[in-house]
Amino acid sequence: MGVLSEGLTQVLIPVAALIGLGFALLQWYLVSKVRVSGHSGGHKSYKDSLIEGDFEEGVDSLEVSAKCAEIQNAISVGATSFLFTEYRYLGIFTGVFGVIIFLFLGSVKGFSTKSEPCTYNTGNICKPALANALFSTIAFITAFRSGAVMGFLLAANGLLVLWVTINLFKLYYGDDWEGLYESITGYGLGGSSMALFGRVGGGIYTKAADVGADLVGKVEKNIPEDDPRNPAVIADNVGDNVGDIAGMGSDLFGSYAESSCAALFVASISSFGVSHDYTAMSYPLIISSMGIVVCLLTTLFATDIFEVKNVSEIEPSLKRQLLISTVLMTAGIATVNFFALPSEFTLFNFGTDKVVKNWHLFFCVAIGLWAGLAIGYTTEYYTSNAYSPVRDVADSCRTGAATNVIFGLALGYKSVIIPIFSIAIAIYVSFSLAAMYGVSVAALGMLSTIATGLAIDAYGPISDNAGGIAEMAGMSHEIRERTDALDAAGNTTAAIGKGFAIGSAALVSLALFGAFVSRAGIKTVDVLTPKVFIGLIVGAMLPYWFSAMTMKSVGSAALKMVEEVRRQFNTIPGLMEGTAKPDYATCVKISTDASLREMIPPGALVMLTPLIAGTFFGVETLAGVLAGSLVSGVQVAISASNTGGAWDNAKKYIEAGVNEHAKALGPKGSDAHKAAVIGDTIGDPLKDTSGPSLNILIKLMAVESLVFAPFFATHGGIIFKWL
Amino acid sequence: MGVLSEGLTQVLIPVAALIGLGFALLQWYLVSKVRVSGHSGGHKSYKDSLIEGDFEEGVDSLEVSAKCAEIQNAISVGATSFLFTEYRYLGIFTGVFGVIIFLFLGSVKGFSTKSEPCTYNTGNICKPALANALFSTIAFITAFRSGAVMGFLLAANGLLVLWVTINLFKLYYGDDWEGLYESITGYGLGGSSMALFGRVGGGIYTKAADVGADLVGKVEKNIPEDDPRNPAVIADNVGDNVGDIAGMGSDLFGSYAESSCAALFVASISSFGVSHDYTAMSYPLIISSMGIVVCLLTTLFATDIFEVKNVSEIEPSLKRQLLISTVLMTAGIATVNFFALPSEFTLFNFGTDKVVKNWHLFFCVAIGLWAGLAIGYTTEYYTSNAYSPVRDVADSCRTGAATNVIFGLALGYKSVIIPIFSIAIAIYVSFSLAAMYGVSVAALGMLSTIATGLAIDAYGPISDNAGGIAEMAGMSHEIRERTDALDAAGNTTAAIGKGFAIGSAALVSLALFGAFVSRAGIKTVDVLTPKVFIGLIVGAMLPYWFSAMTMKSVGSAALKMVEEVRRQFNTIPGLMEGTAKPDYATCVKISTDASLREMIPPGALVMLTPLIAGTFFGVETLAGVLAGSLVSGVQVAISASNTGGAWDNAKKYIEAGVNEHAKALGPKGSDAHKAAVIGDTIGDPLKDTSGPSLNILIKLMAVESLVFAPFFATHGGIIFKWL
Repeated sequence: MGVLSEGLTQVLIPVAALIGLGFALLQWYLVSKVRVSGHSGGHKSYKDSLIEGDFEEGVDSLEVSAKCAEIQNAISVGATSFLFTEYRYLGIFTGVFGVIIFLFLGSVKGFSTKSEPCTYNTGNICKPALANALFSTIAFITAFRSGAVMGFLLAANGLLVLWVTINLFKLYYGDDWEGLYESITGYGLGGSSMALFGRVGGGIYTKAADVGADLVGKVEKNIPEDDPRNPAVIADNVGDNVGDIAGMGSDLFGSYAESSCAALFVASISSFGVSHDYTAMSYPLIISSMGIVVCLLTTLFATDIFEVKNVSEIEPSLKRQLLISTVLMTAGIATVNFFALPSEFTLFNFGTDKVVKNWHLFFCVAIGLWAGLAIGYTTEYYTSNAYSPVRDVADSCRTGAATNVIFGLALGYKSVIIPIFSIAIAIYVSFSLAAMYGVSVAALGMLSTIATGLAIDAYGPISDNAGGIAEMAGMSHEIRERTDALDAAGNTTAAIGKGFAIGSAALVSLALFGAFVSRAGIKTVDVLTPKVFIGLIVGAMLPYWFSAMTMKSVGSAALKMVEEVRRQFNTIPGLMEGTAKPDYATCVKISTDASLREMIPPGALVMLTPLIAGTFFGVETLAGVLAGSLVSGVQVAISASNTGGAWDNAKKYIEAGVNEHAKALGPKGSDAHKAAVIGDTIGDPLKDTSGPSLNILIKLMAVESLVFAPFFATHGGIIFKWL
Repeated sequence: MGVLSEGLTQVLIPVAALIGLGFALLQWYLVSKVRVSGHSGGHKSYKDSLIEGDFEEGVDSLEVSAKCAEIQNAISVGATSFLFTEYRYLGIFTGVFGVIIFLFLGSVKGFSTKSEPCTYNTGNICKPALANALFSTIAFITAFRSGAVMGFLLAANGLLVLWVTINLFKLYYGDDWEGLYESITGYGLGGSSMALFGRVGGGIYTKAADVGADLVGKVEKNIPEDDPRNPAVIADNVGDNVGDIAGMGSDLFGSYAESSCAALFVASISSFGVSHDYTAMSYPLIISSMGIVVCLLTTLFATDIFEVKNVSEIEPSLKRQLLISTVLMTAGIATVNFFALPSEFTLFNFGTDKVVKNWHLFFCVAIGLWAGLAIGYTTEYYTSNAYSPVRDVADSCRTGAATNVIFGLALGYKSVIIPIFSIAIAIYVSFSLAAMYGVSVAALGMLSTIATGLAIDAYGPISDNAGGIAEMAGMSHEIRERTDALDAAGNTTAAIGKGFAIGSAALVSLALFGAFVSRAGIKTVDVLTPKVFIGLIVGAMLPYWFSAMTMKSVGSAALKMVEEVRRQFNTIPGLMEGTAKPDYATCVKISTDASLREMIPPGALVMLTPLIAGTFFGVETLAGVLAGSLVSGVQVAISASNTGGAWDNAKKYIEAGVNEHAKALGPKGSDAHKAAVIGDTIGDPLKDTSGPSLNILIKLMAVESLVFAPFFATHGGIIFKWL
């Protein structure tokens, strides 16, 4: 037993969560107090006024404010409408999927054997099945809410709901901790299913609107980006919200839920669970609680100690946030380990027990945390236009779009090297020290600074949206330039966020994979058996199939948007002249419907693959599929995100003309800039749809396999039984 | 014992090889008799005259002939000069590498343990080491020669040299078949090392020259492709030879040598070897002999039975060749199995014996053969402009280069699905029926129609070259159009060839991987151990690293070419006006030097990875690396080749304007065409350098691991020993 008592643990976790929620609400209050107009009077701090100085072009400030509010409202209505539509489909999906889970798992009679860790008695066979089915719904709701807001709200909300649910389920399960924590795996499945809708549906939405708006507006009608005459412009800005904010949030929430669940499940069948040590059992939750406190401190550093005075300080400041939170969290982990864990314990390791020391777990969590930092900094190096890689890509625009694309692709390929080595080291250390429990807490370590990470990540689309609103409201060029600079930093931080998301997804998937293998009763996953090997090679193919599907989905949805925008330009008189208002709502509706319809094929691929592989080919082939898609998907996702981010920032580098080199390539409209725009457009679906969606592919397949493992172990491998 | 006696086997193999050689020489003689001029008089068959009808533009035919001969000579001199330079470096490389092999393996004392199949006695420990070191050189020479010519010459030459060497080595090894066939693995290593130079060096050469020539000629100076005023034009055509012909040849030769060696090695430690059944032992060679005969018959079908009358018949005719050779070969395999194999035998299967029936092996070889056909046909579907995928890509050029690139990338991703399932099925069947021996003979099955496959593949670059010569010699537009149509079919067949190459590389690598695991004395390669998993994820990253390197190499080499071409245009007076001749030789030299220098980093990555992974991390991590790079590399290679092929043909589709749709997109110079040209340029390094080079990555790492396995098993894993 550790120093921390069960009673104190039961208090500390919800208190940390509530502090996080309170802090989030406070931040929200502070943000809502920011005035748009520059004529605020009194002292000027960045908290109070976004628009400083005089307007060069004599735009009336009241009119601008009113316009801003109007546009903001339109975007907000669009986003809410999308999320509610998405939510309706999600509701149907949840119901159907819940029934499927119940049927599959309910049909398994006495699937537990000696080789498996689970020890059911006949009476409660259906309990986990039912619980899984029910519980997914709760997580859907949580994830949905959390995905819609950011940072602290997400971290605190996720933690609080998990804690509440564990305590509620305890009333039902009583002392059957294995059953209790096994049913909690449904939380992960729920989070991941929500992420499927948020990431894939949202990803298709955002890029369909973006590409559709650009193809007609910029290419055909020759009007600038974010011009209010473009009917798809609101849909484009809604897309930034639902794809880049809600999608990213639900993705990271899914990772958080899954890594917690994987850790809890493994712990429940280890000495923590067997000896009913509640505090040690709650280790993953305590780590997350500490994470909230650490991120709170980190935010205070940014807002109160190192105040950001101008745009060029933003990127270093955001980077510093990452570093500060990582250093503080390292100390936090040591503290948690000292107080919450016994000095020695045993962990379940594929059928055997592994003796683990207190400080071993410290290294597991810390290595995950620091690997996250390494991934973040590498991503920053490859996607920020302050360093040579992006500048080389910008330089290659001299010789046209083709060299730009070649250099961009090569940059993306190269950018996977260090992240993969970081992930490999994190996996080796955590895996060796504490088996699959180690891997899942390493993932939690990477995600422990999620509040800071998400704040940094959300910064990009918010700046992008702000730029759009500024443009539409007819604000001065100075403001537009400032939001562009913010947006460039935002591209980098968004790429960093994607790096975290994929890195944690890799660790989480491995942990879930390990839990699946344990639960399915497999002892080894030997590459040298044909069943596993074909799974491995087909699994490695899935990210390509999935990417092809999501890219095609963006294309089809964008095409529908193009038709609608063309129709409006042709049928609404005075639209081009700015005398008539476009019908924004129809574009939002088209994007909403198209994105939800277009996510069906990739969604089906993700949801059906484990079911088909498990049912027809059995658990070994499925294990191969999971391993293959994991090791291959990580590479595709990282390279796609970074290539896209680099192209976007290469374009911004040329536009901004910060130095002689950039000026020689520019200005806007030069041949080099045109080549850069082509790269940027290609990068859009890569970095915002197909790349990040792969996280969902690898995580959701793993957690689904885990939930259905007992069924596959009993009834799976039909084809090989026939042969 | 089979029906075929040892004596007869010893006669049949060299006879088949000699027939192949004779046929190749006959074909060569026939080709050399083709006259360039149209004024041949007498009857006109396609064998006698390439230029039919009158010249519309009154170009004097004698002058044209003379110019053709001159250009041909320049290209031939350039190619020979490159190959000889390459050969010199290869010589040094071979010497150094031979010494390394000797030192590494010579240092292994008594590495054979009970768990390993090899049973050395103290006396001949160094024999395989020395033999490996020496034998690599022979294979280098063979591969070098074979790589320079095509089809039959390669198949027959490879077979003959292998047969001669086995018989020569027999004099030394006598009855020690294990030692004999283990030393033969050096043949594979040699073939693959040559392929490294041919594929990677040649690939960089061809695209550096191509991109360099285009960037200055087409983009800056606005002169047409293949214009004789462009100083890099000869280097470009030389590139088609050394990259697409010699490179492809050496790649497939490497696959052929490795799969034969892997099969022979496994057989030598199975009942064939133990019972000294020479005929059954030579089964891989007999299959190849049968392949030569089958391909000869297939060629007769094409040239004498179904005569090709016009350009549109070419692609169907080439496709028919594939089908005919596959059907005939299926019967051929059945025949060989009946005569050469005993009805039942045992094969070595990772430490255990597996009883295999005669007809099991038939299915192994046949499934490889038919999987090759499936890959070929799928590739054709995705890269030929006769079908909807390429037409959709062409159509996407309407909305600019960005959509063209997105659709092209998505097409490439999608095109991996069927090939991967084909490979997976081939692996499952052959692996289940006859373990690693099955996999290696499946690879041989896929390669058994290599003579036909290479003839089809070589067709592309030959047409490309012919088009270039026609343009430079100032032949009529009609001829240029005809060569363009030939070239479009050639892009498809080249993609088919690449599909075969990567498919067989996947099977070969798996077989070598199996042989490596056996020889290193590992029983299982369990994904659920940290050592293997980190190997797997890092291995899956290597294709990206390698691709980034080769793409960068093309960029750097192309840049050097650009500088030289610019220099010539600026310093040679009258060059642009056509009154002065450019200095072709300097461009050839620059391409040669740059490509060989630029292949060092990717080459080092391939050669050093197994050595570092094996020495520092041990055989399990190395096994993970091999499996990871195999399953990930296959996907990258297939998608890169097909994307590139599709872009090239989308451009050709628009240029040719064969139907209303294509005409609406064209003509040359339209916006859609410009977008298509950008896609084509991006595809060049993907389809001709980075994509196909990945075959080398996965094969060479596997065969190198196999050769060094005893060293790694004894001394490897230094880091883990320290920890």
